[in-house]
Amino acid sequence: MIYPKSIAALIEHFQKFPSVGPKSAQRMAFYLLRMPLTEVEKFAQSMIDAKQNTRTCEICFNMSSSSPCEICSSPQRDKSTICVVAETKDLIAIEKTNEYKGLYHVLQGLISPMDGIGADDIRIKELLNRLTDEKVKEVILALSPSVEGEATSLYLSKLIKPFGVKISRIAFGLPVGADLEYADEITIAKALEGRREL
Amino acid sequence: MIYPKSIAALIEHFQKFPSVGPKSAQRMAFYLLRMPLTEVEKFAQSMIDAKQNTRTCEICFNMSSSSPCEICSSPQRDKSTICVVAETKDLIAIEKTNEYKGLYHVLQGLISPMDGIGADDIRIKELLNRLTDEKVKEVILALSPSVEGEATSLYLSKLIKPFGVKISRIAFGLPVGADLEYADEITIAKALEGRREL
Repeated sequence: MIYPKSIAALIEHFQKFPSVGPKSAQRMAFYLLRMPLTEVEKFAQSMIDAKQNTRTCEICFNMSSSSPCEICSSPQRDKSTICVVAETKDLIAIEKTNEYKGLYHVLQGLISPMDGIGADDIRIKELLNRLTDEKVKEVILALSPSVEGEATSLYLSKLIKPFGVKISRIAFGLPVGADLEYADEITIAKALEGRREL
Repeated sequence: MIYPKSIAALIEHFQKFPSVGPKSAQRMAFYLLRMPLTEVEKFAQSMIDAKQNTRTCEICFNMSSSSPCEICSSPQRDKSTICVVAETKDLIAIEKTNEYKGLYHVLQGLISPMDGIGADDIRIKELLNRLTDEKVKEVILALSPSVEGEATSLYLSKLIKPFGVKISRIAFGLPVGADLEYADEITIAKALEGRREL
């Protein structure tokens, strides 16, 4: 024996999620089995609802309940700036700061030859199409300082230049509250490189 | 904005699981949103199936698709030994070794005054009832060497003694493959205490 079939199937489903190993999947399945049936049904329904109610914005490729998304269709947002991010979750991280009032463009990935992801597999063409609109004055590249993020930023900046818009990249350096002593060398190098005159 | 409502609800559901924080919950929700709808529906259904098809065994309180469970009703199992565990997942860990052929008793918790869990809140009474059956010759306590596990083991051994059955406890010591140098003091002390003559 070991597991009843239905529990084994459930554990297998949980294990498909990123960073969920066999032990976590088992823990989650057992937790679920202790929940009242009505709660389990609500959870199951919320998964289907979220899936069915989520669209991809036809302009910026953000995940949203409508297309164009709430950001693209808001009259309050500054249409002169486009912030380029890799994934919707990066957009959300920036939105949480409440500091940025422009538009976004979600690439839906980064160029990564190792994983077989080329420039045509992410939403680069669609970004360039948006730049033909004269309202756009600046593109901010907010991609992670990883190998893939660096490569994609470099590639994008070359393609964007001919459009004559300002291109900038978010700053990399020591995170606020960090201790210089414990920072890694690459971060310190980036922090030195990005120093500003006071 | 930040999240569409249906995604926020989904993230909230994931966050209820043990050892799933806001970041993991978000990652899991986004992973789910990238799955095809048919897959999401299968997952949702498997949760409801697992919940509906899982019973608690009326004899040993194991989670199973039937009651009595497959172990309690198997003629191959040795009815003279009962192994006492805290949770079904501990039973599964022991079953995976393929070494134990007796029966089990799942306490469904450990005595923990800090969490308000007393002796009456776990399946102790039901264990003692099983000991009135003359077939039972040995009770093996397989509870973790935590404060709660120790307290529950001590309490159980006092209650079981009058029944005149053998009581044993699983051995604690260095795990196989471990390095003495890196073991903690309590484990080393347990290993010394539990030494066996060769």
